[in-house]
Formats: sequence, C-alpha cells, structure tokens
Amino acid sequence: MNYIDLDRTEGYKALIGTGKCTVQELLSPERIRNCDIRLGGGLRYNWAAMPISGDAAAKLQALADEEDLAGKYRELLSGAMMNTGEKRLVLHHLTRGNVLGVKVEADGEDKEAFYSGELERIREFSAAVRDGRIKGSTGKEITTVCQIGIGGSDLGPRALYLALRGWAEGSGVKQLRGEFISNVDPDDAAAVIRNLDFERTLFILVSKSGTTQETLTNRDLVLETLRKSPIKGLVPSKHMIAVTSKTSPLAKDDSMLAAFFMDDYIGGRYSSTSAVGGVVLSLCFGFDTFRALLDGAHEEDRLSLESSITENGALMDALIGFYLRNIMGYPATAILPYSQALSRFPAHLQQLDMESNGKHVNRNGEKISYPTGPVIFGEPGTNGQHSFYQLLHQGSDIIPLQFIGFRECQYGEDIETAGSYSQTKLNANLIAQIAAFARGKDDSNPNKEFDGNRPSSLIYGDRLTPSSLGALLSHFENKVMFQGFIWNLNSFDQEGVQLGKVLAKKVLAGCEGDDILKAYADLLI
Amino acid sequence: MNYIDLDRTEGYKALIGTGKCTVQELLSPERIRNCDIRLGGGLRYNWAAMPISGDAAAKLQALADEEDLAGKYRELLSGAMMNTGEKRLVLHHLTRGNVLGVKVEADGEDKEAFYSGELERIREFSAAVRDGRIKGSTGKEITTVCQIGIGGSDLGPRALYLALRGWAEGSGVKQLRGEFISNVDPDDAAAVIRNLDFERTLFILVSKSGTTQETLTNRDLVLETLRKSPIKGLVPSKHMIAVTSKTSPLAKDDSMLAAFFMDDYIGGRYSSTSAVGGVVLSLCFGFDTFRALLDGAHEEDRLSLESSITENGALMDALIGFYLRNIMGYPATAILPYSQALSRFPAHLQQLDMESNGKHVNRNGEKISYPTGPVIFGEPGTNGQHSFYQLLHQGSDIIPLQFIGFRECQYGEDIETAGSYSQTKLNANLIAQIAAFARGKDDSNPNKEFDGNRPSSLIYGDRLTPSSLGALLSHFENKVMFQGFIWNLNSFDQEGVQLGKVLAKKVLAGCEGDDILKAYADLLI
Repeated sequence: MNYIDLDRTEGYKALIGTGKCTVQELLSPERIRNCDIRLGGGLRYNWAAMPISGDAAAKLQALADEEDLAGKYRELLSGAMMNTGEKRLVLHHLTRGNVLGVKVEADGEDKEAFYSGELERIREFSAAVRDGRIKGSTGKEITTVCQIGIGGSDLGPRALYLALRGWAEGSGVKQLRGEFISNVDPDDAAAVIRNLDFERTLFILVSKSGTTQETLTNRDLVLETLRKSPIKGLVPSKHMIAVTSKTSPLAKDDSMLAAFFMDDYIGGRYSSTSAVGGVVLSLCFGFDTFRALLDGAHEEDRLSLESSITENGALMDALIGFYLRNIMGYPATAILPYSQALSRFPAHLQQLDMESNGKHVNRNGEKISYPTGPVIFGEPGTNGQHSFYQLLHQGSDIIPLQFIGFRECQYGEDIETAGSYSQTKLNANLIAQIAAFARGKDDSNPNKEFDGNRPSSLIYGDRLTPSSLGALLSHFENKVMFQGFIWNLNSFDQEGVQLGKVLAKKVLAGCEGDDILKAYADLLI
Repeated sequence: MNYIDLDRTEGYKALIGTGKCTVQELLSPERIRNCDIRLGGGLRYNWAAMPISGDAAAKLQALADEEDLAGKYRELLSGAMMNTGEKRLVLHHLTRGNVLGVKVEADGEDKEAFYSGELERIREFSAAVRDGRIKGSTGKEITTVCQIGIGGSDLGPRALYLALRGWAEGSGVKQLRGEFISNVDPDDAAAVIRNLDFERTLFILVSKSGTTQETLTNRDLVLETLRKSPIKGLVPSKHMIAVTSKTSPLAKDDSMLAAFFMDDYIGGRYSSTSAVGGVVLSLCFGFDTFRALLDGAHEEDRLSLESSITENGALMDALIGFYLRNIMGYPATAILPYSQALSRFPAHLQQLDMESNGKHVNRNGEKISYPTGPVIFGEPGTNGQHSFYQLLHQGSDIIPLQFIGFRECQYGEDIETAGSYSQTKLNANLIAQIAAFARGKDDSNPNKEFDGNRPSSLIYGDRLTPSSLGALLSHFENKVMFQGFIWNLNSFDQEGVQLGKVLAKKVLAGCEGDDILKAYADLLI
C-alpha cells in the first residue's frame, strides 16, 4: 500500500488549482435531492450546501483513488499494524462485526472470537443483573450503574447513554440509571456519590491499562466512601466490576464481582462499541439495545468500504472536511445536533477528532507541514442559535457546520402550539439555519447583511434509535479514519498527552528543582 | 469620546511591527510572580505564559490609552447609548452596584432604584418560598425550581447554579433543587418534567421580550402537562412566575404567581446578575448567596476602572486576547477550568464572547476588515487532558488557553491516595499543563517532540464561592466589553440571529414558494 504525505500527491496539487464555487451559486433543490448519500441505521448524509462543484468532486474522487483510501480501510480491517507509533493493530470495527469476513489473529488468538466471547459474557452478566439474579451484597436489586473512567472511557459511553434514555423511555424499555465519575477533582465524585443508594449501585471501573491516575483515585475514593458507610453487610468490592485489558493489574484483582476485557487494539476514543461502552449500555438498557447499536455501526462500517465517494458518506465527509481545511483554509468545525439527546455527542466527537488527527507528524513519525485536524466544538440546536450562532453568521472567520436532525422525537411527548408541534418547530429552525448560512441576505444596512456561503452538511433520519445512533458513531469514526489516511497520519496514538503526565508526577514529587513548576505550585498548591 | 476602527489607530500599527518574543524565552519564576493582577473576589489573573514582552506590554498600554478603553467603560457606566445598533443603554453593571456613584435615568426612572427595587422583591419572595410562607397550590412546600428560558436566560443561570451546588453543600446552605428547560426539542422538557413533583415545583418563565418562540412553546408544554395531571387542586399557573421586561405581554399575565422585571438595557448574555439569574439563584441558594455573588462581581467591576493595564485584569486579558487574535493570528481560544463545578461555564463564555464580538461591522454599522471575536470552546480539566489536549499540544494550529483553578475543592470530601489528595493531583496536572504548553520538549523522535510556545493564562483563587464566582463572571464580561472597544464593535446587539428566525417562520408557514426551503423540508418534515 502506498502511504505518502498529502503534499506529495497529484490529487492535492490538482485541487489547489480548482476554481472555487460558492455555496450560493451551487445550492439548488435538485442538488439537495442529488447530493444525498445513504448511511447505516436509516440515516442519510446530505452535502448539498458544501462548496464542492462537480469539478471539485471529481478531483476529490481522484485523490481518494490515488491514495486508495478505501483500500487502506480494507488493510486496517485485515489486521495491518495501522497504529504505527505504538505498533498495534486497530480493531474497533471488529467489536461490531467482521466487515471483510477475514480472520484476524493477534496475541495468539482469533480476535473476532475474543470480542464476541466478551460480548456473550456481557449479555449474560447484564441479563442477570437486570432480572435480579445478581444482586448487591446486601441482597437488594441493582437499580443504578456508575461508570468510573476518563477520556474515551467516559465521553463516548456517557454521550451514548444520554442519547438513548429518551428512546428507552419512549419505547418502554426497562432502564437502570446511569451515572459517571471522571474528573480527579474530588467534587465530581462527591456530587455523584451523595445521590447513590450504595446497596443498589454497581460501579464499573474502566481503564485499559489499569493504571490511569484519575480513575484509580476515584475508585479509591468510592471504595473508601462505601467502607465508611454505616450500612450493615455492605461489601464494597462486590459492588464493583472492571473493564480492562487482560494484562492489566486490574484483571488480576479478584476482589471485584466481575471483569470484562478489551485489548490494546481498541483505542480509548474508539472503545464505545467494546466492553467500555458495552457493559454500561447493556446494564442500563439491556443487551438487545446494545446489540442494535452494534448492528447500526456495522452496517455503516460495511457501507464505508465503497470506493465511489458519492456512495460512501464517511469517505465523502472526510474529503469535504479535508477540502475545507486544506484548500479553503478553515480552522474549525461546529457539530450542531438538533436533538437534545445528543447533548454530549459533540464533546465525544471533539475527543474523537482532535485526539486522532491533531498531529504534526506523519504515520512514520516524520514532521509534516500542512494543516491537519481542525478545532471541533458544538452544542445542541436550537440552543446554539441563541448563543454562538451570531459569530457563525456574521463573524470574521467562516466555520463549516455539521448539522444532525431527526423527523421524530424520542419520548413521543409533544404538543401543538401556535399551529405546529415542537418537533416541527425544531426542524423548521434547522432547515432555516442551513438556508440562512448558505444563502445569506443582502441589506442596505451592513449590520443586517449576511454574506452567506457558510458551508454545512446534514445527517438526518427518522428517529434517534440504538441502530441510527450506532451508525452515527461509526460514520464519524470512519470519517476521522479516512481523514487520517488523507493526511497520512497515525490517527490511533496520542503522544501529545504524555508530557503533561510526566510533569504532573514531578509536581506531586516536589518538582525536583524545576523553578517554573515550583513558581506555579506556589500560586496554587 | 473617540471611537475609531482598530486599523486606524497608531497603537495597532505600532504593534504590528513588534518583535515577537516566544513564551519559552520569556517564562521565568520571576515573571510568574510579577505578571499577576488582583481581581475581585480574592481571585488573581496570571499572564506569565503569554508571549507578551515588556515592549509589547508597553505598546498595549499605549493602545489602551489611545483608545481610552477605561474611559469608554466609564462612559458606559454613566449611561451612554453604548448599544448603538438597538439605540439602548448598557446597564448590567448596575445590577450589582453603582460603580461610579452616578445617577442613570432612562424611561423616566432612576435605573439603580429600579434594579435594587427588583432585588429587594427577589429577596422577599425567595425568603418566603424558602421558609415555606409561600407554598404550592396544594399546600406543599416548594423544593424544586425549574427555569424555562433559552440562550442568555439559560446558559448563564445554569452555569452559575451548577457552580454553586457543591459550595452550598460544603457550606451547609439549604438548597432547593434547580432544573432547566431550554431546547424547543420536546425531548428536553420530557426528560426534565418526568422527574418533577409538580406540587413542590415552581417554574420560572424567563423571556425579556415575552415572545421567545422556544420559551413560550415550553411554557405551554409544561402548563398542558400540569393540567393533565391527576393531582387534585393543582393550579398550574400558581406554580409559575415570570422574569421579563415590564412592557412585555408576560408582564400583563396576572394568572401567574409573581413577576420580576429586567429591562432592555440588560442584554440576554449579560443578564445573569439581573432577575434572570437572581430569582433562580436566590430561590435555590438563598438571597445572601446571590448578594455575595453580586458583591464579588461589583468588586471586579470597580477594579476594571483602572487605566494601567498591569492593575486591571479584565483590560489586560482583553488586550492580550486582541494581540493573540490580530497580531499573532490565532483563530480560537480554549477555556479550561480545573473545577468540575465550572462544567458549563465554558458554554456560557462561548455565548458571551462569540455573540458579543462575532461581528463584521463596527459600532456605526460600517463593515470592518480585521478579525474580531475568536471561536471559544472548553471542557473541565483533567477531562480535557484525556480528550482534545492532543491537538492543543501537537496540532498544526496554536490555540491560546485560559486556565482556571482553585486551591480548595467545594464539598470538602477528599481523600489521600498514593501520597496526595485528589485536589492536589488536580492542581499538579494544571501546573504541569501550563508548563508543558509553554516550554514544550525536544526529542529525537518527532512524535515525542513538543514545540511548546502555546500561550496560556491562569485565573486562580482559594475556592470557588459565590463571591469569587461573581468576580469570575464579571472578569469575562468586562474582558469581552474591552475587546469590543478595541475592535470598535457594538458588543451588545445580535443582528446575526435574526435571519434564521425569519426563515424558520417561513418554513412553518409552508415556505411561501421558496424552493430551497421546500427541498430541505422534504428531507426533514
């Protein structure tokens, strides 16, 4: 496979010379109908309001072919060592199904068998907790699940949990309450712990390495609080399970009720469909719900194999994102779900994208000189409309937008006021914003003038369900993966977080003669 | 007063030619001790790790003097029509105290008397609800307060509420539970409503104009739900109070239990210290808590009068932000509180900053050609460290950082593990990050190399209390105000949100022959 830096490709050079078309010129009803790609889980990706002419699209296809982006995805699925920095395979797709049907072996085992074996263990355990066969140490049924983890062990599972509560409620699915502790700030744990009924709570300790400082500290804080509790017969360790790798210290701690395993081939930010997300989601909503999420993701994973960019939403989204970043020069992208259930989904995508592609070296560890991952931020619409949209409409920089919307709400509790339902008002606002950003408005008063030409895309579907949520997650994971291929990055390591960890240890050890650290410590500690 | 565009000032021209110093070159223990400015509420602002040499600082002072930034603030405080677009005074400072001691009249009334009169009414009402003299319509005490509002009526009050819960708990202050409904997505209200005991809940309807579509829709949804409730004797309107302007339709609705007033001189994003934040915070934490917050903000408002930039934290922060944006060319800024209590504070600042200064016209409505407000985003540390910090450390763009930290936690529930308390670990990480971002690290392996020179500032204090929180809020409000002066903007209108509202009405009315809107509506509605 041919891995070369972006600025050495013919496709990139050809794109630099592309005549630029504005969104205003391009957008038409016909284009809205035509620039529309099927994703998994019943979703579709519409890129009509992107500044991509027919000529630019053809050149993006040529770049995709030259770099063989779909082929690199196949290579990843086949078990190539795609995490070049840490010399690891990248296997998160395998947690939801075997896309190519090939056997991937590592550490002397069949990885598909390993992940599906863990999935079966999750199915059995979650069913036993939910139907009361497994109880708390004082004999009471478990009603609350509290995940202790940080980063990928927190943001993805938390976003997915919040995204499914309303669906479960609206669909009559039995729910256990989910809580999350992540920050080493003791106030995070304190706020959560005081609202827990310890006898009915199961804690899930999530750390792949088993050595994450924040997570182990919060585990100790929780165990100490349980130990101090006056409840008779409460055995703290029997209210805790672990999700970790088989080789971690946690895997050997048999004081806990149970342990479920992932491995080094699943990066933290890609771990939502492994045991990291699977245990908590199966406990809270039942295994069938989690299985439906996996199936939606797997469907999207299969669609992502397509080499024609007009048939592959993740690939097209990746190429457009690259075009906006490297050809148009836009430094940020906003994620704007018109769905309250996706309130924390932008925070997950922020990690997924910025940690994967916020890099300055290529996959061989050599410095590169072109822009890579943009800043990612977002909040649910319509809330954002009453907040930062002012800058998006009339600020000095152009920020591309990724809208997400659904025809139906989740709870099914809606009322008609002033002639329309709330869900209709929500989507009317979404449509209006896409049009306003694209077309702008002339006005003799410059303060009421909108330049327009703000690019946007729209992912849409009937309803946010486990299946469509899984596809949405996979869409963005694969988009980020394809962008990593375009930029010739390793999207699966994170060396940029190491230096802070080392220095934090120095501060805790008394700075070892480092004057700067001492001077700051004098301010704060 | 002399209002001219930035690119016509001598100070700006002088700064363009400033020799650039790197953070690496500048940062020293002495500088950490010296570049440290007192804010209100016991806080301090440290700008040691900013790329501002002595020469640049002198030129920033010259620009501040040339533009008379402190004088413009005095003009605002004196009741000048600073919201030039909407032809309104800008009086949010007056909600916490009279900084200059001058009388400001508008609409035929003394505005200080009006705001303090409303404050007194809030004091009385909140005390009566909290001590049970005012009860729900079925005779039960109120234990939960639910604010219905969007944008400025939501983000600020919600961020402050979340910021004070742990403090109240740790300080033994009686709390009513706070809930918030904002999104027109019916799932937002559905998720909140199902956890409310209607007999014990008081709803606060917040809309300055009394016509906000999302808020009125959610009011109707709440009232309809209460009407359908089987609870005998429940009178829905007696569980609702309004915060609005005296001239709005809501002010005339005497079916509600009470109404509290603000006016057109308080912009939504600046309204947290008016009745918009005052009613909910006084109900949840008691009036004395809200008063302490106002006092902290007022102290910072007074310190912001200083014309020497090394004595005025808000002014210095504003000038540095301008330098990073217009001289260095950085398009975004991250807000990174090392305090879980400030989890939604970045979302509030995102609105405050981006809606105020995301503008393309000057205060006279004429187009300008220099960059204005940056993208603002952020999440609490240490969580961000395990997420998007990879891009901050090793991404292709430099993102300036604003850190916030406190010596003590709020709840006072901390444990020692591995030789240190969680709060110490939290702050060790904060210090380590500042140092890592500033200094970077050489390495023969480019993947483990950190360029450093990532600028950051630090706001710090003993503990997040009502007083320090008020000062923190005021600091950023005044920073944004000073930046608006530097860029010669009107930071107090938001014409950029109007077009979307108009188009949303067209969609709801059936598009009136607009093909683009119809084509998008065919996808979604």
